[in-house]
Order: sequence, then structure tokens, then C-alpha cells
Amino acid sequence: MMEKLLYTGKAKQMWQTDDPEVLRVVYMDQATALNGKKKDHFAGKGAAAKGISDLVFNYLIEHGIATHFIKQLSPTEDLVKKCQMFPLEFVTRNVIAGHFASRYGLKEGKVLAEPVEETFYKSDELDDPFINESATIALGIASHADLEKMWSFCREVNALLKPLFEKAGMQLVDFKLEFGRLADGQIVLADEFSPDNCRLWDLKTDQHLDKDVYRRKLADLTKTYDEVLDRLKGALGKEN
Amino acid sequence: MMEKLLYTGKAKQMWQTDDPEVLRVVYMDQATALNGKKKDHFAGKGAAAKGISDLVFNYLIEHGIATHFIKQLSPTEDLVKKCQMFPLEFVTRNVIAGHFASRYGLKEGKVLAEPVEETFYKSDELDDPFINESATIALGIASHADLEKMWSFCREVNALLKPLFEKAGMQLVDFKLEFGRLADGQIVLADEFSPDNCRLWDLKTDQHLDKDVYRRKLADLTKTYDEVLDRLKGALGKEN
Repeated sequence: MMEKLLYTGKAKQMWQTDDPEVLRVVYMDQATALNGKKKDHFAGKGAAAKGISDLVFNYLIEHGIATHFIKQLSPTEDLVKKCQMFPLEFVTRNVIAGHFASRYGLKEGKVLAEPVEETFYKSDELDDPFINESATIALGIASHADLEKMWSFCREVNALLKPLFEKAGMQLVDFKLEFGRLADGQIVLADEFSPDNCRLWDLKTDQHLDKDVYRRKLADLTKTYDEVLDRLKGALGKEN
Repeated sequence: MMEKLLYTGKAKQMWQTDDPEVLRVVYMDQATALNGKKKDHFAGKGAAAKGISDLVFNYLIEHGIATHFIKQLSPTEDLVKKCQMFPLEFVTRNVIAGHFASRYGLKEGKVLAEPVEETFYKSDELDDPFINESATIALGIASHADLEKMWSFCREVNALLKPLFEKAGMQLVDFKLEFGRLADGQIVLADEFSPDNCRLWDLKTDQHLDKDVYRRKLADLTKTYDEVLDRLKGALGKEN
């Protein structure tokens, strides 16, 4: 049958499959910055990002987190459950960095007294504006109960991944999660977890091991992601 | 004695007095927009804005709201209690308008299902960035309990002022409040309540009766504020 392309994002494509409840995700060899205004090709980046995301998702699933992940099809393709996505990005910040630093005139690198939780409304035309709970509810984007559920996922993910990345010699500075609702109404963690959507700093040197190496032209992107993948495999005791 | 100028804002000056717990506020004949980048002089505007603010504050005080207001000194001067101000603007939105409309790609004029509550971090250099509760607490700007207290003030003020402005033929579209802490620790409503910091639309014609007439070059600012003052006096049964 003809597969239908449902969606092309900044680093992934979503394809329909024979099963209406299952999608095929293809990780592309592409990185973007400035909300897509800057875009470049990096051979091997898709496989590295997916390798990291699959390791993380499997680790989260083993620890009881419900996700959309079904299985790997190839080094750049996964099968996932179809979700109705919430048009929201859930950002958890353990350390001051990036936009958060510039928005409030703060220096990068200070560990926050407690994690900061921020949501952004996903809209390319509007540049993914910051949104708070009050507006999210009043505009009918998500209910208070749904938001509580998703933030509780974020806190569990943070509690699981901070020590995992530390074991791999990296500080989990901040990360973005997205969620969707399955046909049966259950909310699950969806999208991906890769250095495209989080900040990872080397525990000893503070070297950037995430998409900031592309945004700030610091190092080769694929090489950086491959290093994160290797370190994670080591921390998880997986064969290389 | 020499009075000391403590602070010059966009439309007011704060002066020290003989009493260390009391300040003198002077309303200036000035309006600014674009966070101070646009600035103009309007004869009589200070007195009109203060006239409105005093009526509103007295109305709120009569209805049990604790404020910094002490008494009027002259048509452009008040005495107020000295507060340690929270560097936050508390915005309550009953109707979609202004930045809220453009930020989320919405049309102005729709009544919100429930009021939207937003805080902004007061900083001229940073352009008063949007901030949420999580960051406010993590950065030590205000505690959860303080924020709850101030939002509860905002809800009471909205419940009192919506019908008051309706009686005066105006829709209270949105408004900004600021709060401070007195020497004894009590949190009180401070700053002002004038069309500099709220949106008022004529109930029948939707005509703008607030600072948008300056921002959008729609009408004479002082004349507009004088009309709001007259209407409010009428609604409150005060002599003109």
C-alpha cells in the first residue's frame, strides 16, 4: 500500500502504516535552530539521536513510564502508537541555561534551588510562545488534571534520568518532553528524548554535549551525539 | 527639609517624606509605550489618571481590600505607605486583547471562558518578561503563599471592579496590579489603577477608553481619561 506522510517536523517524519493506531517515525539527518530558520544536514545524526532516544525510552518504560514507543524498525525508524498530541512543550530546568538565562538576565550554569517547569505552546508561526497554566486551561488546550498528570510524568522522568546521565558523566541541565493521548484516553510520553531537546554538560569540563554545539558552532553534531550514545550505553551496561 | 526623589517611573515619581514609612507619589503628565521607547507629554493626564486611581482605590478599600493608599495631597499627589514592592506585574484578562492576542494568534474581543492570570517580571532592561509561578518561586522572587495571596487580591478586585465599570458603561477587558509588603509584613495592593494599566472598552461601541488610544493613536489621551473619570464618578454617585 501507499504510505502517507502525515507530518514533517524539524528532525523527524511521521508516516501512516496499515494499522490506524500505529505510526512509523523516521529520524532525519537534519538539525535546525532559531525555530527552523537555520537548517543543516548531518550524516548519521538521525541514527545517533534515535539511538539515544530509544535507550532513554526503554529505560523509562522499564521504570514504569507509559510511552508511545512500540519497537525499532531500523537504525533510523521506530514504530509508535498513534496519539492525539497536546500542542505543548514541557520544559524542566535543573540548571540555568539558554533562553531561561537570557530571558531573566541570569548567568548560565547555576543549579536552581528547585527545578523550574515551563510550558510552551507549539506553533511555528507564533515561535512557540511561553504559556502558563491559566492560559492553557482558559484556551482549552489542556485541563488542569491533564497538566498535573503530564507534570507528574516530567518529575518522574527527571528523577530517573538525572542519575542515569550522571552515571554517564553528564549533567542533565534541562529537557523538553511532549505528551499525547491514546485512542483509549490514556496520556503517554511521546516524541523523543535526544540531545535535540535537552542540554547535557560534561560533569567535569561543562563541555556541551547537545544541540547547543550546533546552535553555538562548538563541535561536530553527529560526533557529539555518538559520544552521548556511547556514554549512555556504558552507563546502562549495553554492548557497544 | 530636602525631599529625596526615590524613583521615577513611566508616569509617576516617588518621593521620600519626613516619615520613613510614608512616600509622596506625584502623577506626571506623561505617557509612554513600547516599554518607554515612545514617550509624550499630555497636559492634565496626571490629574485624570490619579483621579481615576483614587476613586478605584477608595472603592476597593471600602470593600475590604488592603492598600498602600493614605490620602490625597493635591490633584496630582497622594501620600502612600512605603512598601517593599514585589518586582511583579499581575495581569488579569477577562477578554482577549493586546499582547495576549498577538502572542497566541487570537482575535481581540472574545470573552475568555475564565479570566487568564499572568505575571511579568518587572525589569526595564529585560522588557518585563513573562514569568510563571515555578520560576518566580525558584528564583526567590515570591513564595507560593505570597503568590496565592496576591492572586486572591486580584480575583477580589476583578469581582468588585467588573460590575463597577459596567455600571459606568465600560467593559473591564484586562488590568495590571502590583503589590508590596509593609514594614509589618502585610501584603497590600500598591501602585495605581488607571487606564494606563488596564483596558476599558465602551460597552456599546467597543471604543477604547484606555492607554491604547495613545499606543494606537486613536484619540486624545487626557480627554479620554477625563471621560473615564466622569463616568466613574457617575457610577459611584459622586459630585462632578
